[in-house]
Amino acid sequence: MASEKIILGIDPGTTIMGFGLIKVIGKKMEFLQLHELQLSKYDDHYVRLKHIFERTVHLIDTYHPDEIAIEAPFFGKNVQSMLKLGRAQGVAMAAGLSREVPITEYSPKKIKMAITGNGNASKEQVAKMLQSVLGIKELPKNLDSTDGLAAAVCHFYNAGRIDVGKSYSGWAAFVKQNEDRIKK
Amino acid sequence: MASEKIILGIDPGTTIMGFGLIKVIGKKMEFLQLHELQLSKYDDHYVRLKHIFERTVHLIDTYHPDEIAIEAPFFGKNVQSMLKLGRAQGVAMAAGLSREVPITEYSPKKIKMAITGNGNASKEQVAKMLQSVLGIKELPKNLDSTDGLAAAVCHFYNAGRIDVGKSYSGWAAFVKQNEDRIKK
Repeated sequence: MASEKIILGIDPGTTIMGFGLIKVIGKKMEFLQLHELQLSKYDDHYVRLKHIFERTVHLIDTYHPDEIAIEAPFFGKNVQSMLKLGRAQGVAMAAGLSREVPITEYSPKKIKMAITGNGNASKEQVAKMLQSVLGIKELPKNLDSTDGLAAAVCHFYNAGRIDVGKSYSGWAAFVKQNEDRIKK
Repeated sequence: MASEKIILGIDPGTTIMGFGLIKVIGKKMEFLQLHELQLSKYDDHYVRLKHIFERTVHLIDTYHPDEIAIEAPFFGKNVQSMLKLGRAQGVAMAAGLSREVPITEYSPKKIKMAITGNGNASKEQVAKMLQSVLGIKELPKNLDSTDGLAAAVCHFYNAGRIDVGKSYSGWAAFVKQNEDRIKK
């Protein structure tokens, strides 16, 4: 029997969180669920963080993922926005840590490259490729939730090649480890 | 009978976390505990975050604080360090959120001012003042853990003046709300 596992992909943000779930059977993957959490309606920063924690825990307790993949930018506009993003990431990570699910993070560029072969692909290109490889009938209008799914699929693509469950120290480290895979 | 409550103060960081606990009885405060979590010995970023989450949850479950006060800088050297700090803060906050304990954050400057009357006071000055007002016999050699305690004491000082349990949107907002209290 082929091994089975479930991957939860998360794209953390302070205005919207994207979640995507896939099931991996042997070397094939199956689409399970797309999910998004709208946070812009909550003014209070702690209420947002509380919703992120509760929703992530809820998804873990519902789907029992074996692994979590998180989209995590390493650079941003300014220190304030990075602090907020770091908090959102930290809260989502704490949800995974509280349930003992291993977490791997990927830079946005790495995810785009893994899905489309182009690190600078647009959101639409990533979504279209996901729709095609996973046979999703209809995509949501808001493409933010597909970013979570993209992280999960990126994690699946990397599973056979690099140790899963280890975190990369960033894009630079990834490039160093995978020089033969970079399109020049 | 005078009302009683316990305040847990936290100074989150990625190399060391400082925790301080005080008991408030009516208008008096009592020193309970100083605690520090050394994280520099763990190389892996997730192991650090896991320890932060578990230790914070453990302290909450042991002392049942009614409120949490967090020292939270709003500015930092660079986006990378702020992202890491944001994650540490987020994980500590998630621990509080998971136990339904209200969180208030204070800027380092605000904490120093509340304790010493000087927003630019040194770590030693803050520690000495804490030792005096709380009657602590001996301070730890490493003063990082007193920063957590300072956050708790700052929260106590503010309890009677400003709504407790509300987060400030930053130093600027605090200054605006408290112009009469700023030393010029």
